[in-house]
Amino acid sequence: MLSLVILGTGNVATHLAKVFFKTKNLQLKQVYNHRSNSLKDFEKYCPVTTNLDQLEEADVYLIAVKDDKIKALAARLNIGKALVLHTSGSVGMNALRNHQNHGVFYPLQTFSKKRSVNFAEIPLCVEANSKENLGKTEKIAREISGKIFKINSEQRRSLHVAAVFVNNFTNHLYQIGAEICEENNVAFEILQPLIKETAAKIETLNPKQAQTGPALRKDKQSISNHLQMLSPEKQEIYKLLTASIKNTHGKKL
Amino acid sequence: MLSLVILGTGNVATHLAKVFFKTKNLQLKQVYNHRSNSLKDFEKYCPVTTNLDQLEEADVYLIAVKDDKIKALAARLNIGKALVLHTSGSVGMNALRNHQNHGVFYPLQTFSKKRSVNFAEIPLCVEANSKENLGKTEKIAREISGKIFKINSEQRRSLHVAAVFVNNFTNHLYQIGAEICEENNVAFEILQPLIKETAAKIETLNPKQAQTGPALRKDKQSISNHLQMLSPEKQEIYKLLTASIKNTHGKKL
Repeated sequence: MLSLVILGTGNVATHLAKVFFKTKNLQLKQVYNHRSNSLKDFEKYCPVTTNLDQLEEADVYLIAVKDDKIKALAARLNIGKALVLHTSGSVGMNALRNHQNHGVFYPLQTFSKKRSVNFAEIPLCVEANSKENLGKTEKIAREISGKIFKINSEQRRSLHVAAVFVNNFTNHLYQIGAEICEENNVAFEILQPLIKETAAKIETLNPKQAQTGPALRKDKQSISNHLQMLSPEKQEIYKLLTASIKNTHGKKL
Repeated sequence: MLSLVILGTGNVATHLAKVFFKTKNLQLKQVYNHRSNSLKDFEKYCPVTTNLDQLEEADVYLIAVKDDKIKALAARLNIGKALVLHTSGSVGMNALRNHQNHGVFYPLQTFSKKRSVNFAEIPLCVEANSKENLGKTEKIAREISGKIFKINSEQRRSLHVAAVFVNNFTNHLYQIGAEICEENNVAFEILQPLIKETAAKIETLNPKQAQTGPALRKDKQSISNHLQMLSPEKQEIYKLLTASIKNTHGKKL
């Protein structure tokens, strides 16, 4: 059985603590955060500490703090030959290189404290500085998910950028849709089944095959009608994405 | 029991014919299209015709053809006092005003011939030129869906624009994500659970609450790192959407 300590109490730490606690073959030994307030929710799972000098001995230390705090926190860890992992999509593995054994354990999902997630469905991107460490990292991953991908730091960074498009920017398009609905006294819920199907569709079709709409059809009349209904800011987004769709689908492959 | 004739054989017509055929209290009497080839798939449901002079008598004629063909087709229909409906999101109800009884029956969903849909979950936006015609239109809607919304032509047009953002443009962001993955030899499937969760999240949070990412956090370092990894076209989209997120969330409400 592998024993673990989690450092950090954000969304990722919260969901990982919950799933590790439930898992038979992993032992969650401790959670650390510098503020005791943030540790309250973790007391039901395991002992907690605000003091790095009082860290429990464990096989693996999992750093789940903000990207710009990872390196500094890692530097302060006095844990000998234990394996240190971080959970970030955009920080290179070498941020942990002051530790002999290190790697990355990146769950590619959007986490909110209030929404429960099914870890079995979450892709875990793993990387480590040796075969043995990779094996250990994969062992943890297999305990909680069926979707494990060996991804190097550069690939992970590209995944993180791609995630900004398909998650952050997509959510902002939902926000624009919600604003248009609100301005016209229409319930946003009318759009929800469409949003769900748009996401579900690309599990069987690739996004290129799934594309529809006036930009793809080069339907100038609809495009011009739509632009007339939009505010200048939304017009600009509409124009740029329409041009990009035309560009993507106009190319000869 | 209401009897229906469908005019058109596109995606919407295909899915409507299928669901009407299965419904007990609606009788699908005929499907019309000017090309006999397109009618083949419909022969299993009901008689078909390529001749407008041979249309069956029915209570309701449902026009499910391309937006720019609706008015002209409606003008050629010689159907007395029967109710004529179109299924378009962007064409006003008055495109059918040469008929005494008319209205709109707009299913707000993205349809592909190859993907089956669950009509019970699809919002049906209805409108008609009299109380009686609205009642009849709602009666058809209730037979196939639990989600019926009374929406006027202007609201419907705004919904259609909103749908371009949350469906067409969102799918294009998926395409950009897929391209970034491909360029970096990463499987696009790694992003699919994130895409699904992004869509599911807004059923419990509104998009404004659900927003995350570097633009929201005003995390200049991540934004600058991301921009360096992108082609000029993707950079432009990244910049514009980042500015728009900042603008949306910077406002005092």
